[in-house]
Amino acid sequence: MPNVGILVVGNEILDGLVLDTNSHWLINQLKALRMPVIERITVRDEVSEIAKAVRRLLEDGCDIIFTTGGLGPTHDDKTLRGVAEAFGLPLELNDEALAIVERQYRRLHELGFVREAELTEARRKMAILPKGARPLDNRIGGAPAVLLEVGDSWIICLPGVPRELKWIFENEVVPLLKRRMSGAFAERVIRIQRGDESTIAPILEEVMREVPGVYIKSMVRPHGEGIIRLWVSAWGETQSEVERLVEEASRRLMERLGDS
Amino acid sequence: MPNVGILVVGNEILDGLVLDTNSHWLINQLKALRMPVIERITVRDEVSEIAKAVRRLLEDGCDIIFTTGGLGPTHDDKTLRGVAEAFGLPLELNDEALAIVERQYRRLHELGFVREAELTEARRKMAILPKGARPLDNRIGGAPAVLLEVGDSWIICLPGVPRELKWIFENEVVPLLKRRMSGAFAERVIRIQRGDESTIAPILEEVMREVPGVYIKSMVRPHGEGIIRLWVSAWGETQSEVERLVEEASRRLMERLGDS
Repeated sequence: MPNVGILVVGNEILDGLVLDTNSHWLINQLKALRMPVIERITVRDEVSEIAKAVRRLLEDGCDIIFTTGGLGPTHDDKTLRGVAEAFGLPLELNDEALAIVERQYRRLHELGFVREAELTEARRKMAILPKGARPLDNRIGGAPAVLLEVGDSWIICLPGVPRELKWIFENEVVPLLKRRMSGAFAERVIRIQRGDESTIAPILEEVMREVPGVYIKSMVRPHGEGIIRLWVSAWGETQSEVERLVEEASRRLMERLGDS
Repeated sequence: MPNVGILVVGNEILDGLVLDTNSHWLINQLKALRMPVIERITVRDEVSEIAKAVRRLLEDGCDIIFTTGGLGPTHDDKTLRGVAEAFGLPLELNDEALAIVERQYRRLHELGFVREAELTEARRKMAILPKGARPLDNRIGGAPAVLLEVGDSWIICLPGVPRELKWIFENEVVPLLKRRMSGAFAERVIRIQRGDESTIAPILEEVMREVPGVYIKSMVRPHGEGIIRLWVSAWGETQSEVERLVEEASRRLMERLGDS
């Protein structure tokens, strides 16, 4: 089961102008593909910070790293320079990427979204990739996404504009990920009427000890309702096994808490 | 100007059950206090991962580190164990914290939110802090927040329940932070009618070169409108200086792009 890391790039996130919903969306897509996200790092638009974060995610055991943001034509779009630096790779113009950029600006021009169709310096920049990387198509905006393979690891760089990120993920990335799918995940949320987490804590621990491999988290609702949500989940290798674990743990929880 | 790091703890975030809005809220509060967030890390509920992330944020130059989540009474609440491990500190029962926990459960019991008022093992757990740390009051829920000073650095641990986090930040943390305030920040968003980032890229670079210290980021609106937002911002030491930089850069941008 491949471990996933996410690197969110952008001052607009860390200065609070934009709420990052891209990574939440990605996490849920990856969950549906049975790929756990083990860590997320958010950094500013600085080449050395991006490079360091990529190296840390690899060190921490991520087999697939997604980056979001920083692929566009302007000076603050530095993700590919950071990825190149992380592996000591030179940057070079990629013909396949250039063809995507050209096609996209021709289309965007025909549709009246941009004034000129020709390749300016800023547009060419989006086709300059780390050596050995290949572009992934983008049929919404101008910047190709990028796949870099380093040993058995994949670095997949997606743009930050949500509509572009989603199109690329669904059309270009999912087919790639399906080749690496091997894991299983199951989850269930149980609501109990019980105002206080602290009194159920020993029961959660008991059930987690009795059903190894299952993870139980309690989450409080605002006061007044007195409702606690118990989230029972398991990652594993086969779907039947994780579903059995979640069902078994849920049954034990309801037995011990259901009449409370 | 102190640099801030945020550590978000919780499987519920990395498994996509919950969208993290706490850190976005914190970032905006810190911006109002003129304290830049330079990095955010999100990890699972694992002691060693929490410890490693705290150490990395310190290494990266964070003077103040906020953690969110993982302070409650259940087994999955591991933040304080992680913080203790990061600095090789033992955990010990803190009397002041215990008094807060006791008072809160007495109140929550009187209000009918919990069945029993007495201190169970799970509730006592919330008063076990890294040696040398001190509690910050929580008048909403049961778990005190925690302040640990390590040299000149502060580690401030907040609960993940948004209402508790906000109460503690506003009532307990802001007065502390005001002692360390020294920076300045200014920002402005300019909207221009220009369908394409790539054609304005050279102008943004030009203005950033001419007005050092200012940061300009372009953000695209969905197609059809053709509107680009330019976010002009500056961090610095004095308010008049950063405002002057942002005004100067904005004026130059509008001169060169306004009639486009």
